[in-house]
Amino acid sequence: MPKLDMSEIRSLVQSRQPGRPLEAPFYLSREILELDLEVIFGRHWIFVGVEPDVPEPGDYASVQIGRNPVVIVRDDDMQVRAFHNVCRHRGARLVTEPQGTVGKLVCPYHQWTYELDGSLIHAEHMAPDFDMSCHGLKKVHVRSLAGLLFVCLADEPPADFDEMARALEPYVAPHGIADARVAARVDLVEEGNWKLTMENNRECYHCATNHPELTISLFEYGYGFAPESGDESRCEAMAQYARTEAEFETAWEAHGLAWQERDELHGRPTAFRAQRLPLDRAGESQTLDGRAACRKLMGSLKRAKLGGLSVWTQPNSWVHLMSDHVVTFSVLPLSPERTLLRTTWLVHQDAVEGVDYDPDNLTEVWRRTNEQDGALVGLAHSGVQSKAYEPGPYSPYTEGLVEKFVAWYIERLGAHLDASGR
Amino acid sequence: MPKLDMSEIRSLVQSRQPGRPLEAPFYLSREILELDLEVIFGRHWIFVGVEPDVPEPGDYASVQIGRNPVVIVRDDDMQVRAFHNVCRHRGARLVTEPQGTVGKLVCPYHQWTYELDGSLIHAEHMAPDFDMSCHGLKKVHVRSLAGLLFVCLADEPPADFDEMARALEPYVAPHGIADARVAARVDLVEEGNWKLTMENNRECYHCATNHPELTISLFEYGYGFAPESGDESRCEAMAQYARTEAEFETAWEAHGLAWQERDELHGRPTAFRAQRLPLDRAGESQTLDGRAACRKLMGSLKRAKLGGLSVWTQPNSWVHLMSDHVVTFSVLPLSPERTLLRTTWLVHQDAVEGVDYDPDNLTEVWRRTNEQDGALVGLAHSGVQSKAYEPGPYSPYTEGLVEKFVAWYIERLGAHLDASGR
Amino acid sequence: MPKLDMSEIRSLVQSRQPGRPLEAPFYLSREILELDLEVIFGRHWIFVGVEPDVPEPGDYASVQIGRNPVVIVRDDDMQVRAFHNVCRHRGARLVTEPQGTVGKLVCPYHQWTYELDGSLIHAEHMAPDFDMSCHGLKKVHVRSLAGLLFVCLADEPPADFDEMARALEPYVAPHGIADARVAARVDLVEEGNWKLTMENNRECYHCATNHPELTISLFEYGYGFAPESGDESRCEAMAQYARTEAEFETAWEAHGLAWQERDELHGRPTAFRAQRLPLDRAGESQTLDGRAACRKLMGSLKRAKLGGLSVWTQPNSWVHLMSDHVVTFSVLPLSPERTLLRTTWLVHQDAVEGVDYDPDNLTEVWRRTNEQDGALVGLAHSGVQSKAYEPGPYSPYTEGLVEKFVAWYIERLGAHLDASGR
Repeated sequence: MPKLDMSEIRSLVQSRQPGRPLEAPFYLSREILELDLEVIFGRHWIFVGVEPDVPEPGDYASVQIGRNPVVIVRDDDMQVRAFHNVCRHRGARLVTEPQGTVGKLVCPYHQWTYELDGSLIHAEHMAPDFDMSCHGLKKVHVRSLAGLLFVCLADEPPADFDEMARALEPYVAPHGIADARVAARVDLVEEGNWKLTMENNRECYHCATNHPELTISLFEYGYGFAPESGDESRCEAMAQYARTEAEFETAWEAHGLAWQERDELHGRPTAFRAQRLPLDRAGESQTLDGRAACRKLMGSLKRAKLGGLSVWTQPNSWVHLMSDHVVTFSVLPLSPERTLLRTTWLVHQDAVEGVDYDPDNLTEVWRRTNEQDGALVGLAHSGVQSKAYEPGPYSPYTEGLVEKFVAWYIERLGAHLDASGR
Repeated sequence: MPKLDMSEIRSLVQSRQPGRPLEAPFYLSREILELDLEVIFGRHWIFVGVEPDVPEPGDYASVQIGRNPVVIVRDDDMQVRAFHNVCRHRGARLVTEPQGTVGKLVCPYHQWTYELDGSLIHAEHMAPDFDMSCHGLKKVHVRSLAGLLFVCLADEPPADFDEMARALEPYVAPHGIADARVAARVDLVEEGNWKLTMENNRECYHCATNHPELTISLFEYGYGFAPESGDESRCEAMAQYARTEAEFETAWEAHGLAWQERDELHGRPTAFRAQRLPLDRAGESQTLDGRAACRKLMGSLKRAKLGGLSVWTQPNSWVHLMSDHVVTFSVLPLSPERTLLRTTWLVHQDAVEGVDYDPDNLTEVWRRTNEQDGALVGLAHSGVQSKAYEPGPYSPYTEGLVEKFVAWYIERLGAHLDASGR
Repeated sequence: MPKLDMSEIRSLVQSRQPGRPLEAPFYLSREILELDLEVIFGRHWIFVGVEPDVPEPGDYASVQIGRNPVVIVRDDDMQVRAFHNVCRHRGARLVTEPQGTVGKLVCPYHQWTYELDGSLIHAEHMAPDFDMSCHGLKKVHVRSLAGLLFVCLADEPPADFDEMARALEPYVAPHGIADARVAARVDLVEEGNWKLTMENNRECYHCATNHPELTISLFEYGYGFAPESGDESRCEAMAQYARTEAEFETAWEAHGLAWQERDELHGRPTAFRAQRLPLDRAGESQTLDGRAACRKLMGSLKRAKLGGLSVWTQPNSWVHLMSDHVVTFSVLPLSPERTLLRTTWLVHQDAVEGVDYDPDNLTEVWRRTNEQDGALVGLAHSGVQSKAYEPGPYSPYTEGLVEKFVAWYIERLGAHLDASGR
C-alpha cells in the first residue's frame, strides 16, 4: 500500500460515497491508522472495561490504546482513576500484568513509587532539588456510565459524555454493572482493520448463515429486512415477531425499564444507541437455549424473561445486557490489519461459579460468535486489498447501522481535518 | 533500506550493467517490489497452475498474486474461467480454501451468490433499484497453453500470448497435461526476493555441489560450461554426452517430438524458452535412479526413455516434462524478502497411487532440490543486503539464462517507465 | 511512529537536554536506527568478540552488524582477519554457521573459493578475461585489544583506537584473554532499542531490587548513591565498604594490577572506561557465593580474591574480568525495537569442564541478570512509545554513566551531521 500524504487522506475523506463501505486505503493504510489513533482513539471516549474490573481499592487493570499503555485503578476512596502507565523517570511501564492488586504503584525499574492518586511519594538517589510534586503520573480522563468505563486520552475530552450518560443510564442502570462480578474475559485478535470489526458488528445481515449459536435466541427480524422479500412463511414469522415484541414491551413497561430505541449515532463526538429487543425461545438470555445462564439476576431485575438490551457506542463498543448477565465488547486497533476484541462476561457479584452458573454455558454463544466474526473480518480484510475491490452498496434495510458507523467515522475525521487546518 | 522515489528507480533501471546481477535495491526495496507487483505481476501473463487443478465443473483453485486473490474455476461448459476472488458487496474473499468444488460461488459473508460465469444471481435485502447485472464478479484473463494455466490481471493483457502458445504447443501437447491428474503439490516459502528465486532457477552452475538428488539424472553439461576448463576425464565425459544427445535426438525424431531449442527470452512481454534434453542413467525421468516414477506414461507418449523437456516462461515459471510425469513451478512474491514457490506433480489421470506410482519416489528429487534452492536463495538475499555487495560478473557459459531473465526484467520495467512517463 | 527527515533528526540531536534520557524518537524511529547503523555502528569500533572465538588457523566466527554479515577468521599465520561475509560473484553469504573451521572460504552457491587472506583463488566457468585479483573478499578493519576484538566497517576507522588500547592494556592484559577458552556463549534478543540496553547497563540503580543473584557479590555502593540518603545502618555499611575497598587496593598494588578508575567516556570517537572494584562475600568472582567458579586462574594472576575489573567501551560493550573468568557483552541492534545481546564466558584454556569448573555455576549469575535486564529493557521500550513519555531527570549519583553514554551518543551523531553537512 503506497504511502498517503495528508492531502490524499483529506481527499479520500471528502469523496466518501454514502451508502457504501469505505475505499480500501481506510482499511489498509498505515497513515490512516495513525490518524485513527490520533483522532478517533486519541480524542474520543473509548470504552475499555467495566467497574468490576477493579472492584476493590488497589485493584488495577491495564489497557493499551495504540502506543499508549493506560492503567485503571481503584483508589482507597473507591474512586476509579486512570493514568498513563509510564514512569516519570525513564518511561518504563509501571504495571505489567493485565490485572492485579497493589498498595502503591511502584515502577519495577528503579522503584519510583506513586500513590493510587498518581502522586510520586518516593524516588531514591535523586538530586536535592528534585521536586517530587512535579513528577506525578500523568492522568487520563476516565468516566463510568453505570459501571461501563470510558477513557479519553485527550487533554480536553469531548464535552458530550454527560449527555450520553444521562440518555443511557435509565437503560443500563437496572442491570447493576457496577455491582457485578467479571465471570470471564477473552481477548481475541482479529486479522483485519478495526473498522471492519466495527462494521461487522453493526449488522445482522450475516447472522443467519454464520452464527448458528447466536441466532438461537436472536430474532433476525430485529435487525432489519427487505420488506418485499418475504414469502408466506416469512410473513407469518414476521407477524409472530410483532406479537412477541408487543408482549416484551408490556413486560418492560411493567418493570419500569427504558426500552424505546434511542439513536444518537451521528452529529456528535460521543455517539451512541440503545435498544431493547425480544429474545427467542425462553426469551431470557443469549444462550444455547435462550434460558438464563445464571440463576442470580442482575442488579434490581426481578424477572428472567426480559429479552436483551443492546447498547452501541462510537467508536469502539457494543454491550448486550440481559436479565442474568451482561457481555461487553471493546475494540482496539493493533495495526492496520490487526484488531483486539476484548469480551467480558459479567454476572451478579453473589453468583457462584458452578452453583449459580456454568461458565461454559455462560460464554459459549459469544465465544463462538466472536470466532465466526473474526473469520469474516479476515475475509473482508484480505479482499479489500484487491485491485478489484470497490465499495458495493449497503442494504438499506439491514446495513443501516453500518452506514451510521461509517458516516460518523468520516464526520469525525473531517471535523478534525477542518479544525486542524490540515 | 531507505525509501526510493520513482526517479531513483528509473535511474537504477537505466544504469543496470549487462552481464551482472541487479543492484541491491532491486532485491530489497519495498518500492521496487510494489513496482514489480504492478508492472511485472500486474501486466504480464503469470503462470499459476494447470488445468488438472480444476478437472470438473464447479472445481476451483485459488491463488494470490500480490494483494489480489484470484479464483480459477471450471464452469458447467468445461471452460476454465478466472475471477477476482472478491465479493462485489463489501469485498470479502469468496472462496477461502486453496481448492474445492462448488455449485455456485457464494460469498460466506452475506450469501451474495454468483454463477460460475461470474454473474450475480442472488443478493438478499437489497434496495428495489439494485441492479444485479452491474455487480458480477470482475473477470481475470486466463489462458491455457496445452493445460498450463496463465492469468493476467491487466485489463489489456500482452497480445503475444498466442505466439507463445503456437510456439510451445508442439513441445508441450504430447505430454497430455490437460488430461493429467495432480499427484502432489507443495508450497514452499523461500526467504529471499522472487528475482533471486528466478535467477537461482536459470542456471545449473550451482547444481553439482548443491543438488545431489537432481544431478543423478541431470547432465550438468546440458546447462553450459567453460570450454577451456575441461581436464581429460571431463573431455571424455563431454564426448560421451554428445553421443547421448545424438541418441536422444534420434528417439525424439522417431516419436515426432519437437526438441530443438527455442529461445524467445527477450524483446517481448511474453517471453519463453523450450528445450528437450537427455537424462542420465535410465534416461527416463528426474528420479533417484533415472527411471520413470509412474508406470502409466503421459499423454500420447509411447516410450519411457525420452529424457526431459524443459519450458521456462518469464516472469515466473519453469516446467519439466518427462514421459511419466510433469513438474510445474510457479513463483509468486510475498514481500521483498519472501517468495512462494508452488510445485505441482502431474501423472496420467488413470495412474493409481500405490499401484502405478509411489508418491514419495515421484516427488523426492524436487522436494529436496527445492529445499536446497530455497536455502541458497536465503543466503543470496542475506548477502545482497550488505554494503559490501556489488554485482559480480556472470559466467558467460553457465549463467546465460540468468542474464536473459534479468535483461528481460529490466527491459520490461524500462518499457513501463517509458510508457507511463514516470 | 511518523517518518523523520534529516532536519527533524538534526533538531532532535541539537535540543537534547543533558541529565535526562533521550526523546522518544531516538528509541523508536526507523530513520534514527538507520542513522545509528550508518554512523554509530558503521563508523566506530564495535566490540564483536574475543580472540578465543577463533583460536586456531581456519577457525571463523560470524557476526551481523546491521545488514552487514562479517566473518572473522584466524589465518594460517595466526593473524586475525575480518571480511565482509559476502561472495564477490552474486553476493551470497559465504559462511552460514556462527562458528566453524575451514581450510578455505568457499561460497556454498557456486564454489568461488577464497584464501584465508581473502584472495580469490578459484572461480569455475568464468570468462577468459575474468581477473581473480580484482575479486577478493572485501576487508573489514579488525583490532585486538589484549584479546578483545573490535571491528570497524568504515573505510577509515577512528584513529584513536591505539590510545584506547594503550590505556586499557595494563588493566586487561593480566587476565590473559588471548590465551583463554570460550566456556559458554548465549545470544539473547531483548525487546527494546539498543540504546535502552546500553543505558540499562550503565547504572546499578536498578540492581538491588532486580538482580538478586548479581548483588550477592556486587557492592551497590560501588555504583553510586545519594550521600544524604543513608540511615544509620547504611552509614555503617558504607564505612565497611570503604575499608573493603582499601584492602582490595592493597592487594591490587601488591599484584601489580592497574586499578585506578580511568574514564574517557566522551570527547572522542573511541570512548572507554575501566575500573577495578571489590567484590562482596568471598570477593573472588561474580558467582552465587562470591567464590571463583573456575579453579584455574586466568592469565598471569596468582590470587583468587581480586574483586573485579570492569571495562566499558562505547558504543556497545561491557566486560567483567575476574581472577577466574571473564564475561564479555556485545550489543548489536536488530531493529528499532529489538537488540541482540551476546554474552561470552571465558576461562583459562587449560581449565577442564566438569573438573575445574561447573558451567552452570560459571554462567548462572549473568544468564539470570541478562534475562532480568532484558525484561526491564522491554518495559522501558513499551513505555517510551507513550504520548505521556517525557524524559525524567537522571539521578546525579547513580546514573552518571548513563548520562555519559547518552552524551557520547549525541556528540557522535552531532559530529557526523556537522561533518556531512546534513
